[in-house]
Amino acid sequence: VIVLDILNQRLKENFAQDQFHIEAGDCWVYGYDNSRRHALPNAVIFAQSHDDIVKTVQLCSELNLPLVARGRGSGTTGAAVPIHGGVVLSCERMTKIIEYSPENRYIVVEAGTLNGSVQELVAPQGFFWAPDPTSAPYCTVGGNIACNAAGPRSLKYGATRDNVLGLTAVTGRAETLQCGSYTTKSAAGYDLTRLIIGSEGTLAIVSQAILKLLPKPQKKLTIQIFYRDIETAGQAITNIMSLPITPFGCEFIDANALKMIREHSHPELPKDAQAMLIIEVDGNEESVDFDAQLIKESAALPHLQAFTIAKTVEETNRIWKIRKSLSQALRSLSPHKINEDVVVPVAYIPELLNYTEQLSKQFDIPIVNFGHAGNGNIHVNLLVDPLSPEKGDDAQQALELLFDKVLQLKGCLSGEHGIGIEKSRYLSKQLDANTLKLMQQIKSQFDPQGILNPGKLFEARI
Amino acid sequence: VIVLDILNQRLKENFAQDQFHIEAGDCWVYGYDNSRRHALPNAVIFAQSHDDIVKTVQLCSELNLPLVARGRGSGTTGAAVPIHGGVVLSCERMTKIIEYSPENRYIVVEAGTLNGSVQELVAPQGFFWAPDPTSAPYCTVGGNIACNAAGPRSLKYGATRDNVLGLTAVTGRAETLQCGSYTTKSAAGYDLTRLIIGSEGTLAIVSQAILKLLPKPQKKLTIQIFYRDIETAGQAITNIMSLPITPFGCEFIDANALKMIREHSHPELPKDAQAMLIIEVDGNEESVDFDAQLIKESAALPHLQAFTIAKTVEETNRIWKIRKSLSQALRSLSPHKINEDVVVPVAYIPELLNYTEQLSKQFDIPIVNFGHAGNGNIHVNLLVDPLSPEKGDDAQQALELLFDKVLQLKGCLSGEHGIGIEKSRYLSKQLDANTLKLMQQIKSQFDPQGILNPGKLFEARI
Repeated sequence: VIVLDILNQRLKENFAQDQFHIEAGDCWVYGYDNSRRHALPNAVIFAQSHDDIVKTVQLCSELNLPLVARGRGSGTTGAAVPIHGGVVLSCERMTKIIEYSPENRYIVVEAGTLNGSVQELVAPQGFFWAPDPTSAPYCTVGGNIACNAAGPRSLKYGATRDNVLGLTAVTGRAETLQCGSYTTKSAAGYDLTRLIIGSEGTLAIVSQAILKLLPKPQKKLTIQIFYRDIETAGQAITNIMSLPITPFGCEFIDANALKMIREHSHPELPKDAQAMLIIEVDGNEESVDFDAQLIKESAALPHLQAFTIAKTVEETNRIWKIRKSLSQALRSLSPHKINEDVVVPVAYIPELLNYTEQLSKQFDIPIVNFGHAGNGNIHVNLLVDPLSPEKGDDAQQALELLFDKVLQLKGCLSGEHGIGIEKSRYLSKQLDANTLKLMQQIKSQFDPQGILNPGKLFEARI
Repeated sequence: VIVLDILNQRLKENFAQDQFHIEAGDCWVYGYDNSRRHALPNAVIFAQSHDDIVKTVQLCSELNLPLVARGRGSGTTGAAVPIHGGVVLSCERMTKIIEYSPENRYIVVEAGTLNGSVQELVAPQGFFWAPDPTSAPYCTVGGNIACNAAGPRSLKYGATRDNVLGLTAVTGRAETLQCGSYTTKSAAGYDLTRLIIGSEGTLAIVSQAILKLLPKPQKKLTIQIFYRDIETAGQAITNIMSLPITPFGCEFIDANALKMIREHSHPELPKDAQAMLIIEVDGNEESVDFDAQLIKESAALPHLQAFTIAKTVEETNRIWKIRKSLSQALRSLSPHKINEDVVVPVAYIPELLNYTEQLSKQFDIPIVNFGHAGNGNIHVNLLVDPLSPEKGDDAQQALELLFDKVLQLKGCLSGEHGIGIEKSRYLSKQLDANTLKLMQQIKSQFDPQGILNPGKLFEARI
């Protein structure tokens, strides 16, 4: 209680009145994220500058309070939920564009800038920033950096980690770091930029980022493919990913997902289809037709059911509408579900999908799979309330088995959502003890008091 | 001396007779790299397995001896030179291919495998590994990882850091790390893979690497352009890099370099040319012509002198022969020179080149510039013996001014050669004290005794 009194006093001394909340009612709305977890922080601070972040870290350091940085709370792993209370630092007001240099293909933005705002700003000069999570219109650059966000087009253009040149950040010692460069090439010292990207606010709080911009291709083409069985779809994905071209998207939807979409909104979907692929290529007028022809040849397998190239924007939108209606269908059918984000090498997708079918039968839990198949990144959805008294334990057991299988297939527990709280207890399945310990030792150099986002990524401190 | 006696005894106990050298004459040849520096190690160990590396680190830890890992010594910064004596660990015998998975687009190799061997091995299935330093035929994957090697095609395909999925490595505590993944997407824990890449053997010794393979494009096209002034050439580079296509190479040679080549081997080069560009695009039959047309339009500036598209392999080779003859010309004209590796954002290349001209006049030192202009990576060559009693101080002063200018232009001290010994004293120009200190604190977690490649990257230990 004394600590909280000092906190309140310091807040009043150091920040303008409209820069913080201390009332529980006001703070409550900054205690959630898209994991559906919720916890109450003791205070919320709205940083408006790099210096505000420094002041906030100093304050939390002085009072030894947990400090959870937050963009717009669209993450799905609980990484932004203040499970140990303390201070939530919202970066939503830090939306300044520091420098836009189209001729050098970079833009420097404050961490609270929306991904969508960056895209809008750079589009007129023919550029884009590669990360394209579904939440792009309302998620922040800082949040994208925290969890190494990706999205469909990361298949060709990389995830956040591949598209940030440099960072300004504040460590748990309240020290300012400048890392990376304004150039696409750099070999001067350790790569702290990429170390911080994906660290989920546990190493440092990012105030600014230098984003690498890419030129928008002149033409895109979207292809929809249906298969009568899952093995053939898997084979097609492997074939397509072996071509001397790289599609910018290679999305996959399984039979259960197709069934849900059919019943929910699209009765016209072919009845016996077991898998749908959406392949997207980009380039110029000639090259996309050439690429589509190569894909057509790779996709022409015995159980191919339908192969459609969208010829107009309307046709492209129609294909994507099917894919996007899946989320609505899932929500209306199963408001509580476990949405996983595993990755396996592309050739092992069929084996993974067969295994989820087996798990579904074994535990009597409906499972729906879809995802970014070109990277082997499959969102495995267990349609069950994880807190359900009847099925909760079964779901946990199924998850454990799923993760074991993923790792046995040389895969990875998360492709783009991160670890947060949701998967911290499983991280030791993927990483050996030495590697985990070293990660925590690195953390203790950035944040010796352990005030930055405690309880995230790692299950327990060393 | 007692330490060396124990070292010799331990070597005999732990390694086969043909796995180590202790005689000065034998050790001497493992004490150099392409920086032309040289130092004598106390012993050379030839690792044949991961366990040999572990044993070597244990030995050096026990005796508190410096340990310098070494590929084939083609680095230019002295990073592989054992300036404090101790043990050189040569990875040249670790050339096993652990796993090649073309369907998953990766290959797992031991660290001593040659870059060129990887390329040869994966070419039949239509793949390549992106890093292409000039030394590719005889440099190792481990060496590429140590200095984050790049090369011309990194413009489109990235440097080593962008093309390694995971690593097995041994820390200075002799602990084995497994980091990264077999998949192109991963969001599970800190990115130790990229932290180790470019760390010049100061954090851990890599035993194996999972390399990301890319599909070879079907067609390449090489374009040669001459300009009558340097500003126009710079403008052309900026124009080309603003196109919605990315060439896989954009090489630049300045007037002094052209003059040397003309006098050395190619009298036919246009006399008043002030700059030559080599632009390379790849894709398919149709797309490369389309791209070449865009480049032609971007290049059509007032002082354009000649624009040639190579139509045959012979024509392409002829263009590259000009570029490659530069190194021979440089060596015969100036056996001792300072070869820098600075980077600036692309639009600032003309300003950088003007400045080197100014430095050349100010210090009466011939300067020749060439490099990977698409990334802004310019090799600035000061044609002077750095140890010359008359010009050595001038050269140092010119270098200092050059680096200051590069940083003022938001650039970076090294693009692909690294820091090593050559630039460690300048690193603090680029990195602020907090960032440098944190890098060293991270090092101390990997290597608390400071036995891994001491005296490299950082000028002094914290």
